[in-house]
Amino acid sequence: MQPIEWCGDHVRVLDQRKLPREMVWIVVHDAIEMTDCIKNMSLRGAPLLGIAAGYGLALEAQKKGKTGSALLSHLEDSGKMLGKARPTAVNLAWAIQRMLERARKDSHLGKALGDILREEALSLHEEDRQACSAIGQWGAQVLPQGNVLTHCNTGALATGGDGTAYSVLKEGFRQGKVTRVFACEARPFLQGARLTAFELKQDKIPFTLITDSMAGYFMWQGKIQAVVVGADRVARNGDVANKIGTYALAVLAHENKIPFFVAAPTSTLDPSLETGQGIPIEERDKKEVVEIMGVSIAPEGIEVAHPAFDISPARYVNAIITEKGIALPPFSESLSKLMQGGNSVAAI
Amino acid sequence: MQPIEWCGDHVRVLDQRKLPREMVWIVVHDAIEMTDCIKNMSLRGAPLLGIAAGYGLALEAQKKGKTGSALLSHLEDSGKMLGKARPTAVNLAWAIQRMLERARKDSHLGKALGDILREEALSLHEEDRQACSAIGQWGAQVLPQGNVLTHCNTGALATGGDGTAYSVLKEGFRQGKVTRVFACEARPFLQGARLTAFELKQDKIPFTLITDSMAGYFMWQGKIQAVVVGADRVARNGDVANKIGTYALAVLAHENKIPFFVAAPTSTLDPSLETGQGIPIEERDKKEVVEIMGVSIAPEGIEVAHPAFDISPARYVNAIITEKGIALPPFSESLSKLMQGGNSVAAI
Repeated sequence: MQPIEWCGDHVRVLDQRKLPREMVWIVVHDAIEMTDCIKNMSLRGAPLLGIAAGYGLALEAQKKGKTGSALLSHLEDSGKMLGKARPTAVNLAWAIQRMLERARKDSHLGKALGDILREEALSLHEEDRQACSAIGQWGAQVLPQGNVLTHCNTGALATGGDGTAYSVLKEGFRQGKVTRVFACEARPFLQGARLTAFELKQDKIPFTLITDSMAGYFMWQGKIQAVVVGADRVARNGDVANKIGTYALAVLAHENKIPFFVAAPTSTLDPSLETGQGIPIEERDKKEVVEIMGVSIAPEGIEVAHPAFDISPARYVNAIITEKGIALPPFSESLSKLMQGGNSVAAI
Repeated sequence: MQPIEWCGDHVRVLDQRKLPREMVWIVVHDAIEMTDCIKNMSLRGAPLLGIAAGYGLALEAQKKGKTGSALLSHLEDSGKMLGKARPTAVNLAWAIQRMLERARKDSHLGKALGDILREEALSLHEEDRQACSAIGQWGAQVLPQGNVLTHCNTGALATGGDGTAYSVLKEGFRQGKVTRVFACEARPFLQGARLTAFELKQDKIPFTLITDSMAGYFMWQGKIQAVVVGADRVARNGDVANKIGTYALAVLAHENKIPFFVAAPTSTLDPSLETGQGIPIEERDKKEVVEIMGVSIAPEGIEVAHPAFDISPARYVNAIITEKGIALPPFSESLSKLMQGGNSVAAI
């Protein structure tokens, strides 16, 4: 099940808002439509946002009409629009920058920009697929034997491959290390209940769905041996922005002496930020909090907050698992080494 | 708005499952119907469960037919049935015991048991109303200036008066100490979103509704100056059983150096338990997790956990606010002093 697929003159996007009840595909023809899909959460997940932006620019590049520097300039505008669709996940900006750099670099080769950017977007997708596999392999090494708790959705529906944290769970289960997954529902958007439960069921991995408020109880009861989550942005010092509720899990894991792992491709690292304080936290529509699948759950006309992400300070993070290896604290050093060292260099 | 009302030959129970959308009253004629209302959460909240059990037995006592020891024995059976309706809140057992003791003690006076138990149930209700006021007064004394976070519903809908934690908020707001309330929605049953938001709106107290997963974020941001919650059972050492998610709030408050207060009448104290380890945690129907207002939010046929309560160890609790005063750590001493000292004795 691929959440996004390149189809030549359009891109097929699985509408994740309707899962697990319906499988509906959206046909995306250009960057504007892709921006809409990102904004309205038809697709989500930090790595997938990067891939979607790549395809959005590729679609734009092969449109008839503009060429040369006019096209380059148009692509830059489209990149700006896509980049503003959601502010927290840095993979979006990362992918746009990579696409535009490739366009600028290779546009003189005489090859059509449409071909260049199609290739680049497909590479980006394929590289993420490989990164997911590598993250799974690295992550399974550090997992202890037992039950693992995860948050939100970080699987095939959030990435170009098997996922980030989900890939660690999946490989850990394959290796016999993971006995059971505890999946938090991830209010308000319920990516855990709707998407992760769907993927775990398909993959036949034993799991228990819980509300976010139950995670601490199961940790306190000794039922959880590790927590693995994804990330939307990681600062140089190892502070992690991820789905709202992650910070609570990090604190609860720390208090219960349970290792807390973050799994993310290196495209999620933001070398421009020293700490997590600089990461913008998206405030989404309050409707997503007070309406669940169209049903109102609260009185009308009240004040509601909806920060979609939070920051888990690096001191609660035991390891950051990337496709290039595993970074351990202090992260300022280990992440930087990992980035320089290239493939397959573990910082342990 | 009274969630329960004695009407002579029956009791009117507000069906809280339908709030805030509909105001529907259930007419309860006997202990069996009251047991159903307790089990299916038409009414809930630890102090209110005690009041409901009192009325259930009073209805049973004034039925025509049985008299004398046959009636006493029937009331004991009804008490057992009511007591089993929900296991965690000790107020239920406490109220039943009190009603049965009164029946045994005064049955020789020649007065009809129906009259005796009606009086006792009405007293129990009235005493809880007064306890709520006293809790509000005591609690407002320890509240710092600023925003207060609360969980689940502890107001007029959960008690015989203004509430427990809610009464503290309300009095704190009246005194100008509380600027804004952050109300957690309290998944899975959404008592926060449905009931507390409803009460706060009616009482015109400024508030922000948040998902349970957001509480840590706002603490971390410095937006919360105190946490006040209710309780379903408090052990002698100060361990607190309360709505699932409370433990996470206690740990998060502790980590962020925010005072964590528990407000409950002394009927919530269980002197038979040394620690919280012995408190039974109710496991409710998984349907309450995977269906919200009748709408399914997860794939079919999956494993779901639904512990309705958790235990917050006493080490995270800064004060326990009762109608008799405020107990501070170490609670084994202060709670015991409070119980002996009678009314208006603060342990500070």
